[in-house]
This record gives sequence, structure tokens and C-alpha cells, in this order.
Amino acid sequence: MTTTEPSHRRGKAVDDKILQAVIEEIAASGTLQVRVDAVAERAGVNKTTIYRRYPERNDLVLSAVLELAQVVVPIPDTGTLAGDLTMLAHGVGETVTSSIGQALLSASADSPEFAAARQSYWSTRFQTAAVIIERATERGECRSDVDGPLLLELMVAPLHFRVLQTGGRITADFIDVQVARLLDAVAI
Amino acid sequence: MTTTEPSHRRGKAVDDKILQAVIEEIAASGTLQVRVDAVAERAGVNKTTIYRRYPERNDLVLSAVLELAQVVVPIPDTGTLAGDLTMLAHGVGETVTSSIGQALLSASADSPEFAAARQSYWSTRFQTAAVIIERATERGECRSDVDGPLLLELMVAPLHFRVLQTGGRITADFIDVQVARLLDAVAI
Repeated sequence: MTTTEPSHRRGKAVDDKILQAVIEEIAASGTLQVRVDAVAERAGVNKTTIYRRYPERNDLVLSAVLELAQVVVPIPDTGTLAGDLTMLAHGVGETVTSSIGQALLSASADSPEFAAARQSYWSTRFQTAAVIIERATERGECRSDVDGPLLLELMVAPLHFRVLQTGGRITADFIDVQVARLLDAVAI
Repeated sequence: MTTTEPSHRRGKAVDDKILQAVIEEIAASGTLQVRVDAVAERAGVNKTTIYRRYPERNDLVLSAVLELAQVVVPIPDTGTLAGDLTMLAHGVGETVTSSIGQALLSASADSPEFAAARQSYWSTRFQTAAVIIERATERGECRSDVDGPLLLELMVAPLHFRVLQTGGRITADFIDVQVARLLDAVAI
């Protein structure tokens, strides 16, 4: 970070403000179809500043959501697969039950563009978090043929299903059952 | 059925027409917020006929969807747990990828009333289908402490997640992996 140019750092600060404004706007409006002028006003920047960085509104929204996910549910490194999956699952559980999480999840059928953005989101998240399974494989904790992104998809799915469909509560117990099930499935 | 009173049978026929009209209306409008007058017109009955049977619109929609689920994804009885779960999962997979299924699933944040109706729907479906696990337990195919409705929830969740969130394809392989995973988890 010490080699970062000041202008680059200012650029990062502006970017952070913009993405934060997108998240606040989604939470306030309850839709992913945020208005760029509303985002600009919240962030205190010109609309052109936003358009220069994000020519497509979908990229703007996707970037903000990916950034949020990274902050809210960082990828854990506890030293064991059980520890990592448990921490990740609890983070996901908290996110999907939060108001911003609900807004993001239920703003589903907005448009084909947003469906595509959401697909990129999940794909990126699962690919990135799969490092958990790579590390576990290196430590000899799980089989080497485990499909990491798929394992994470199967961990996340029941949490989302509860929130979006059945309205069941996501208890610590429910999360622990999921994690135990997946650990059994990948154990050597 | 031979002891059914003719008036009762006529009542059933009217009911079928009404519920069928609700499903067509949902598919055509893409929302669960169907208009009762549109349903009445489709079914060729008076609005009062509908209101007499379903004072609450949510009950009307929920009844139609439960009826549809029963027809489209009947509860299998193949003689083995593997056979039953596989058939059920394939039925669910076909339903969630159908246009009516997509309409039902993505019309999520419509209103608290519909959220409640959807919760009743899932609860009823899982409770009813849990007979599969009861039979398997009697045959000695799975542990007696298995929570049937929970098992079914865990089977259905990844299918919905793919359709609603990641946009991944629901292949026969994917379904078979789910079923194998669950069979492992409940095996004696």
C-alpha cells in the first residue's frame, strides 16, 4: 500500500463512496434498479464520475454487492475445514436475514440483466471461497476430488431457501447440521 | 367416488375450474396478485361463487398452487427410498424450471400475506411428502430418528437455489448427486 500513488488512493476513496452509496440506495429503495442520479447524490459525486467508472449500471450494482459480500462475509482461515465452513455459514446466515440481504435476494425477477449480474455474483463468490476447500485438501482434511464451488453452493442453498421460501428460522443448530452434513460428505 | 352426491360432484367440478383458472392467470400475469374478476371470467363463474368458497384471495391462490403441486409432482411410492426421492426430485426439478414454477417462485416479495401463503404451501408439501420417509423407516431403509420434512427441505433447496439465484442448470446428474447425498446421510 505504501507504493500506491496519491491519485490512485483518492480514486479508491471515491470508488468506496460510490459503492457504499449503491448499497444504501438498494436498502432504501428495496430494488436493485437503483437510479444513478440518486447514487451520485448520496455519494456526493457527479453522475459522470460514476458513468466513467461504470458505463453499465449492472456493473455498478454487481461491484457494490461483491464488495459488500467481501466485507460482511470475509473468507475465513481458521486452520480447519470445520472451523472455516462454520464461520462462513454463520456469516451467510446473518447476511441473508439482514435487511440489505433480503432486499438483494428478493429483488429477483427484475430483469434478465440483473439475473445475469446475480449469476456472476454467485459464481465469483463460490470460486473465491473455494480456497477454503483447497487449503483443507492440502491439510489432508478432505478428498482431493471435492468440487469446492459446488460444496459451497450446497451449503448456502438451504439458508437461502429458508429465508426466501419457507420462512423457517435460521438457527445456529440448523447451520451446524448443514456443516456436519457437508463435512461427512467430503471426509476422507 | 360412487357415493359422492351429484351436487357435491358439481361443486368439485366448479372448484376445479376455479383453481385451474387461478393457475392460468398466474402464468399469464406473472404475479401471484391475481385479480378475482379475471379468474371469474376465465373460469366462467360469478365472482360471488369464488368469494363464497374463498373469502380471502390468498386462500384461493394457495389452494390452486397446492392442487397444482399435487397433480404435477405427486408423492411417489416406488418401493424404495432411493426410487421415491429420485422421482420426487426429478418432479420438483421439472416444476421449478417450468414457466408456472418460475412465476410462483420469483413472485417473492409481493406481500406479507403471500409470504405466509407460501410458507403454508411448503409446510403442507413437506409434511405430506414425509410419508416417503415413514415408509422407508418401516422397511428398515433409514434411521428412525430422521426428520422427514427437514430431509425434503434439504433436497428441494439446492434445486430452487440454482433456478432463482445462480442460474445453473438442473441436470439429471445434479439431482442424482443430491439424492445420493441424502441417502448417505439417513442410511442405517
